[in-house]
Amino acid sequence: MKKITFDPVNWTYQNKTEWLCPSHQFQSPINIINDLTKPMKENGEIILRYRKKIDAIVNTGYCIQGYLKGVASINQRLFEFQQFHFHAKGEHTIDGKEFPLELHLVHQAENGQMAVIAILFEIGEENKTIDFILEHLNESEFENNVNFLSLIPKSLNYYHYLGSLTTPPLTENVEWYVLIEPMTLSKTQLECLTAIHNNNYREVQDINGRQVLKKVFYG
Amino acid sequence: MKKITFDPVNWTYQNKTEWLCPSHQFQSPINIINDLTKPMKENGEIILRYRKKIDAIVNTGYCIQGYLKGVASINQRLFEFQQFHFHAKGEHTIDGKEFPLELHLVHQAENGQMAVIAILFEIGEENKTIDFILEHLNESEFENNVNFLSLIPKSLNYYHYLGSLTTPPLTENVEWYVLIEPMTLSKTQLECLTAIHNNNYREVQDINGRQVLKKVFYG
Repeated sequence: MKKITFDPVNWTYQNKTEWLCPSHQFQSPINIINDLTKPMKENGEIILRYRKKIDAIVNTGYCIQGYLKGVASINQRLFEFQQFHFHAKGEHTIDGKEFPLELHLVHQAENGQMAVIAILFEIGEENKTIDFILEHLNESEFENNVNFLSLIPKSLNYYHYLGSLTTPPLTENVEWYVLIEPMTLSKTQLECLTAIHNNNYREVQDINGRQVLKKVFYG
Repeated sequence: MKKITFDPVNWTYQNKTEWLCPSHQFQSPINIINDLTKPMKENGEIILRYRKKIDAIVNTGYCIQGYLKGVASINQRLFEFQQFHFHAKGEHTIDGKEFPLELHLVHQAENGQMAVIAILFEIGEENKTIDFILEHLNESEFENNVNFLSLIPKSLNYYHYLGSLTTPPLTENVEWYVLIEPMTLSKTQLECLTAIHNNNYREVQDINGRQVLKKVFYG
């Protein structure tokens, strides 16, 4: 490892060429400690306007990834839907609790800002849409008889923090919205998914002083 | 320099410990090329609710910096005012044009997101508030007979992009709003300012594929 000689506290304008931007400052995923979260004051509303129709489902070599058209309004800003993909096991943990699967809904705003909505899965009832995704993997033309929205919990209450992509290039301009209500899939479904990609998750990263906010909607 | 052997394209989950987060990706300041900007579609409104009263003006050793209370609503999110400070010469350039001075209004949202409103200055009419700042440097108790808002142009049209702090630690979670309408200060005022700090600016950084948006309000 290169020894970092740059001192970020006692810097000067004379050594500008030596300035270093520390990397791995605000990385994802993280362990969310519920008791350390703060209630989010802002409106924070999430409105998902996704097409039900999945356009394509591919194996990227790193994960199962799908595409559909849609937009999300997140805290009053517009984000375009980019893609969804799965990690097994789940990447975020809540109070140290691990989840077997995590779905990421990736969005981007016109200024390049990324926003990922994360959905945690527990073992329980099977989810029909996951079967559909497994059946049509690597197909770009198929009859759509499932609703993508059935992968998303009814409650959009969430934990929110600023982080990064969880795969290289690990870019740190990502707003994370980790939904509090988990979804379920069956043990068999998880086995089918992990038969394709197992351990395609990143370990939790240091919080480095970041404040996690908690948004709970009423009514 | 350390030779970076990590390949951000052909990575694996087996070499997770070697993953590198590239630093200096989305740095500030930048040269803004007006013809390459895109009109911002979102509402994008900036509403400044600052107290007129400046609470303190200090020489940090790096710049002249001041404090006052206030909040800004930026594109429908709430940011708390943190501090203002000057760079000479200016840091952002527009179509390669340099400015002798740049004022930064630094804000932070509840999730830690930073937003800086940048105001470029040209040589012209003197600005009374700059005289006031020079007179009361390093004082924490003084009669306030100026309006801080007179440092801010009437039009809040802006260029917007995602960047970084322009001093160490160069953190990359900063939304930049560079106001298009410049303000003025007199040549004597600039000389007084640069007698305290000269060349406390950072050179423009690579745009690295970022899209700069332009927001022009009508009416």
